Amino acid sequence: MDIIILGFGVIGRGLAKVLYNKSDYLSKNYGKFNVVGIADSSGGIYNKDGIDLLKAIEVKEKTGKITNYKDAKKMDILDLIKEDGDVVVEVTPSNLETGEPANTHIIESFKNDKHVVTANKGPLCLCFNELITTAKKYNKIFRFEASVGGAMPIINLAKETLAGNEIYSIIGILNGTTNYILTKMEEEKIDFETALKEAQELGIAETNPSQDIDGLDTAAKIVILANAIMGLNKTIKDVKIKGIRRITPEAILLANKRGYTIKLIGNVNRKKLIVEPTLIPKYSPLNVKGTLNVAMFETDLAKEVVVVGRGAGPIETSSAILSDLISIYKEIKK
Amino acid sequence: MDIIILGFGVIGRGLAKVLYNKSDYLSKNYGKFNVVGIADSSGGIYNKDGIDLLKAIEVKEKTGKITNYKDAKKMDILDLIKEDGDVVVEVTPSNLETGEPANTHIIESFKNDKHVVTANKGPLCLCFNELITTAKKYNKIFRFEASVGGAMPIINLAKETLAGNEIYSIIGILNGTTNYILTKMEEEKIDFETALKEAQELGIAETNPSQDIDGLDTAAKIVILANAIMGLNKTIKDVKIKGIRRITPEAILLANKRGYTIKLIGNVNRKKLIVEPTLIPKYSPLNVKGTLNVAMFETDLAKEVVVVGRGAGPIETSSAILSDLISIYKEIKK
Repeated sequence: MDIIILGFGVIGRGLAKVLYNKSDYLSKNYGKFNVVGIADSSGGIYNKDGIDLLKAIEVKEKTGKITNYKDAKKMDILDLIKEDGDVVVEVTPSNLETGEPANTHIIESFKNDKHVVTANKGPLCLCFNELITTAKKYNKIFRFEASVGGAMPIINLAKETLAGNEIYSIIGILNGTTNYILTKMEEEKIDFETALKEAQELGIAETNPSQDIDGLDTAAKIVILANAIMGLNKTIKDVKIKGIRRITPEAILLANKRGYTIKLIGNVNRKKLIVEPTLIPKYSPLNVKGTLNVAMFETDLAKEVVVVGRGAGPIETSSAILSDLISIYKEIKK
Repeated sequence: MDIIILGFGVIGRGLAKVLYNKSDYLSKNYGKFNVVGIADSSGGIYNKDGIDLLKAIEVKEKTGKITNYKDAKKMDILDLIKEDGDVVVEVTPSNLETGEPANTHIIESFKNDKHVVTANKGPLCLCFNELITTAKKYNKIFRFEASVGGAMPIINLAKETLAGNEIYSIIGILNGTTNYILTKMEEEKIDFETALKEAQELGIAETNPSQDIDGLDTAAKIVILANAIMGLNKTIKDVKIKGIRRITPEAILLANKRGYTIKLIGNVNRKKLIVEPTLIPKYSPLNVKGTLNVAMFETDLAKEVVVVGRGAGPIETSSAILSDLISIYKEIKK
């Protein structure tokens, strides 16, 4: 199966490392997963015989540009998408305002006869229906397990293992950065600013942390769940959003005394989509610590099902991307 | 898709109720799921135009025998398996010593050109390889999500959503009865016998509770996980088993004081299969209460993934059986 990776930041390189490390395992259990194209903001490279992944990672990490890789044709990203290949993996940075350039990459991939796997929240929370419709029109597979919860199984779990269930609601912690900050504030009785600074020093929070701590990242994810799992037709504008900036250690202490903790919870059901700091009973399965993510499904047959996993990290995210790639492999090689 | 249900106890009837209640939903989203045959210990009935599920449930609950159902041919179970149909659902009572009659039912189903879904631990923990080999030989699909953890997603989750991961170990609470008893002992500071009696009065523990409280049920389940998920070739004889009879409220209190609780844990990795009462940190995601089940996977890419769900109950178990049926439907209708 020939793969083109668009975006060669931490996630793209994480996937390349995993594909390199697992190449024997994949060949033995499925078949050859061959990366024939890679792109970053400097442009794209293509070699139909396959790209040397270790060399590509080295070139990118040393020079900052994948186009400095030798032994491959250089071209624009949109031309790269037109080259021969089976699957495009879209992992450029998420833009929650325009969805671009990922949206164009994904649509063009379908039009150029390629299946798509993405971890990119932007297009999914802004133009979900257009993407699904285009995939169907061109009879292509579209999978995006990595877009919500990193390595935590959620979208494919709901669509496959919970198939046949009506899903009434999904609530959970879908952002590891805010969970880390709130956990630190609780455990060390420190204020928000101090916990945020610590998270930034550890690389858990970004220099501009707004997308996480103001709840936008969680909002994008519950929109994806609403559309992909519950069959709704929502965008990020439909979400009522409140972040964690105003949570104090005193508020957490007060909650603790009554047997609760405070978490930034995303909550979606047929009536509403909400992101806000929420009191969670200490012994609830939703009370997970550190950067962990958690989601609880309420369904008609299985009743409550909870999943917990690592929401971020290049290797963890690659786990979700790889499971999508394997699923496409099984489908197209039948 | 034509379905034959073998076993019409609580699980078989639960599935019939779910198929009846969901018939519109299934027709709309997939296709017609038509039950053409049902069997219990009194024998089998078959009607190629479909069996009236509400009437079948009524007959069974009023008279104890499905063979009192009118409008269908009566026959032996082994003859029923030979009739036309796509899938056999094997849900007769689990026998962990011989695996029968389920083992014969499953093998005969494959030989008679039928896919199989089962919730039956007996054959899976005693003759897993024979079953898998026979399914392959006759090119039939074999699924058994309901055999471990009821509605808790576990087998298909590991094989699909975690595809590509190496799974190092699986540990968890896989028996709701023992979890209920230990939870009661902890919360109400009562002894084992009192908690067991209460569980029996509520129908959570059976009159002969040995299979649950002595750890056999958990052992059967970790054997299934070892074989199905980790590719091992184990039987229940390979499991070191210790039950919960000797746990005292004092032991639990002592554990609590140090920040732990006591749970009956099944633990499988490449080196060993163990079932035994285990100290679990109070804040571990493995500390789930009541009759809930939980499993934690340790993997190379996704790292730790935890799932929590209802381990028993006719409707909950039907959720897992239904998702297997839907997966087979999608596969054969392509």
